Amino acid sequence: MCYSDIYYLNKDESQLLQISKGVEWAAHAASLMIGLPEGHGLKAEALARYHEVPIAYMAKQLQALSKAGIVQTSRGKHGGYKLAKLATEISLWDITAAIEGSKPAFRCTEIRQNGPCGLKRKDCKSPCQIAAAFGVAERAFRDSLQDITLADLGAQVMQDSSNEHLLEIIGWLQEEAVPLGRANS
Amino acid sequence: MCYSDIYYLNKDESQLLQISKGVEWAAHAASLMIGLPEGHGLKAEALARYHEVPIAYMAKQLQALSKAGIVQTSRGKHGGYKLAKLATEISLWDITAAIEGSKPAFRCTEIRQNGPCGLKRKDCKSPCQIAAAFGVAERAFRDSLQDITLADLGAQVMQDSSNEHLLEIIGWLQEEAVPLGRANS
Repeated sequence: MCYSDIYYLNKDESQLLQISKGVEWAAHAASLMIGLPEGHGLKAEALARYHEVPIAYMAKQLQALSKAGIVQTSRGKHGGYKLAKLATEISLWDITAAIEGSKPAFRCTEIRQNGPCGLKRKDCKSPCQIAAAFGVAERAFRDSLQDITLADLGAQVMQDSSNEHLLEIIGWLQEEAVPLGRANS
Repeated sequence: MCYSDIYYLNKDESQLLQISKGVEWAAHAASLMIGLPEGHGLKAEALARYHEVPIAYMAKQLQALSKAGIVQTSRGKHGGYKLAKLATEISLWDITAAIEGSKPAFRCTEIRQNGPCGLKRKDCKSPCQIAAAFGVAERAFRDSLQDITLADLGAQVMQDSSNEHLLEIIGWLQEEAVPLGRANS
């Protein structure tokens, strides 16, 4: 067997399991798109500026959202991003999976088949109990995020914000929104 | 703001969020310790050999389990590891947290305070709705793993294994178990 040292050497020792910042940025960017005027989008540069994050990484998250069918983009000088579906149809899990991937975070390497008392492969038709337990826990995590839609997040932001702040956001969106050309999702 | 590129460059693009192999190894190693004779332990080398994994990484996981009070070790030439508590008192979450850390996997960087429409810090006393949603999902994940103890895993292994395989494991444990000296947990 061969193990890569890179995985172990490049992670923060005190906390290995981390959801990437890209998920936070993508969730905020997609939430902001709820407020766009019909037929309009936001450029990656504007979304990066709004959230004060580096444009290259914001663009990378938008591409991942586009690939997952969550946002759509258009070609040309007015190229921008808007939601590809209703905000009620996009869950926080959809956004997380678009950025992080949807494969299980726990990867069973079947070490129960290793070593002097290793099980034979033919006796391992059921998943290892440890892998099965992680499967249940990951489903609970996913189900919880699937219950929250962009529409829920938008409604909560509306509820928590002052009228002054909402007007500020709407004003910014009206200034920055670009009419979208032919879709290129 | 300053962002490290290393985090983005060294992870598998198709799947960012991963639970480290160390959790799998630690869970298997701790499960095996259930079968140890009273007052005995297993050397890191034996645990690595049993699971056919590199000794340096197995030793690293055992040190993390020891630091978390899940296993105890002893000094001297008979140094080995045994469970520090009853198997009913050690959950799969305890093992995961010992290896991965127990901080939230989603780190809110408060980007709602950034940019042209950023909220003022004084208006951000409640957590951001996106961070709050991840908090709920992570609690569901943790609660699910907290419900599974080493004793549950052991009982399931007993149920799934043939008598022949169980005798093989017991025989191996009797050969490899070392009497433990003064505890050094």
